[in-house]
Amino acid sequence: MRVITKIHEMQTEIKNLKSQSKTIGFVPTMGFLHEGHLTLLKKARQENDLVVLSIFVNPLQFGPSEDFSTYPRDINRDQSLAECEGVDILFYPGVEEMYPQPSSVRVIVQERTDVLCGKSRPGHFDGVATVLTKLFNIVMPTRAYFGKKDAQQVAVVEGLISDFNFPIELIPVDIVREEDGLAKSSRNVNLLLEERAQASTIFKSLTAAKTEIGKGVRDPNSIKTLVTDIITSQTNGEVDYVEIYSYPQLKPLENLDGTCIIALAVKFSKVRLIDNIILEVGLEIGGEK
Amino acid sequence: MRVITKIHEMQTEIKNLKSQSKTIGFVPTMGFLHEGHLTLLKKARQENDLVVLSIFVNPLQFGPSEDFSTYPRDINRDQSLAECEGVDILFYPGVEEMYPQPSSVRVIVQERTDVLCGKSRPGHFDGVATVLTKLFNIVMPTRAYFGKKDAQQVAVVEGLISDFNFPIELIPVDIVREEDGLAKSSRNVNLLLEERAQASTIFKSLTAAKTEIGKGVRDPNSIKTLVTDIITSQTNGEVDYVEIYSYPQLKPLENLDGTCIIALAVKFSKVRLIDNIILEVGLEIGGEK
Repeated sequence: MRVITKIHEMQTEIKNLKSQSKTIGFVPTMGFLHEGHLTLLKKARQENDLVVLSIFVNPLQFGPSEDFSTYPRDINRDQSLAECEGVDILFYPGVEEMYPQPSSVRVIVQERTDVLCGKSRPGHFDGVATVLTKLFNIVMPTRAYFGKKDAQQVAVVEGLISDFNFPIELIPVDIVREEDGLAKSSRNVNLLLEERAQASTIFKSLTAAKTEIGKGVRDPNSIKTLVTDIITSQTNGEVDYVEIYSYPQLKPLENLDGTCIIALAVKFSKVRLIDNIILEVGLEIGGEK
Repeated sequence: MRVITKIHEMQTEIKNLKSQSKTIGFVPTMGFLHEGHLTLLKKARQENDLVVLSIFVNPLQFGPSEDFSTYPRDINRDQSLAECEGVDILFYPGVEEMYPQPSSVRVIVQERTDVLCGKSRPGHFDGVATVLTKLFNIVMPTRAYFGKKDAQQVAVVEGLISDFNFPIELIPVDIVREEDGLAKSSRNVNLLLEERAQASTIFKSLTAAKTEIGKGVRDPNSIKTLVTDIITSQTNGEVDYVEIYSYPQLKPLENLDGTCIIALAVKFSKVRLIDNIILEVGLEIGGEK
């Protein structure tokens, strides 16, 4: 695995690879890799000639109250994991390399941000879209991999790629779950033992919603109530939100129709968990997409 | 010459050309081609395997008081001129193709815009930068050509390319002048006969400024006064502005140093003309860049 820290070197290398018609799978991350990242890397490995992993803790996407400086970092461990997953190039630039001077331009995300977790993080997705615009131009990938766990981020990236016409295929990767359905997350270790047992209810509530939709229910509010009631009655967790939107537009729906997301956040004593399912709702049947 | 109107078709064609390691010279325009555009096309023709011309009147860069619908268009004439200049591909998309739905993202230009002509056109360069981001991703050029006549646009594009790391070489092309020094422009025909004779003074005033700087003058205000006095005393034109900035940053300077631009706009009875020179100012000598 080659480690590249300079933009110019990266672009030269990529241009060389592209002139050989190599396909490039790209997994952009902020490092401190967990199982979710490794799933993205494995899929990128299967589908491309080369795999590029970027590790860059992007100051632009941190709010004033979010601590950029204490974000966890462990480059040695990340490097070993990347090697194991068969990454060809690790792009690992410093902040000075990515933002050498005050930028004259930035990307504004004007849709899809004022809902779900984005609501409480103004400017966050502007920072994400700006750094991804840079990284896409540096890595010039054939395919870019993002996990569906952060479904709002996938929606924003979908808009960025399609509206700016990046010649990149977005590959949203399914949520990886524990045997009992709990979405894998490095935060799950912060659940109390009792909470961990209850946490499987989160996915069960989403599955129940899917079943109801499969039976023909199209009213978002009754689905939200169903999900909320299941979680409230079967766990000690506090429902932060249950929301239903069109996907990837993230617009409210009067009736479920087309591609929809049911997304939720639940607060336990020491950790807040998120999960979602994306469904293709037709006139007759609802199936997970 | 091939005419392509669809984004997808353009990207497929370009990917194919790039896999053959062809270099691509790109001249983005709003059509109604004049001699300035042809100069850009000639230079692109000399320096690249293929030349792509785009013609797209971009609604995003017109202000509410600027009439997008009456902007001059003559695609048949443009197409003949492009053929004569050896253009390989004319990319000519419709508004529906470029903006099929409300965009979820846009580019904001937060530097270099609040001076010169940009001061009176809020949002103009955001529209320019947004459409160029799209066109760069569609055409994926090796080199992009812009005329130095609109030096502020060149400065904004320089920022866009370098801050977003587009793998594109910006080629600013020198102003083409009449024998007497007047910068060529399709607007020059609107000068009265007497004004046309006087208009050569504009470039003479810039040349006089250069001479003064060559003699060691470093105070921007005395240079501005010199230029203004020459134009006021020798023409019937009214000086709209004479400004001096660092280039391409377009920041005010206390003392001339490094790369600087002297830019001006002069109003005649029926037409407003702009011109500029960009100078490399050292401790000892000033030479045109």
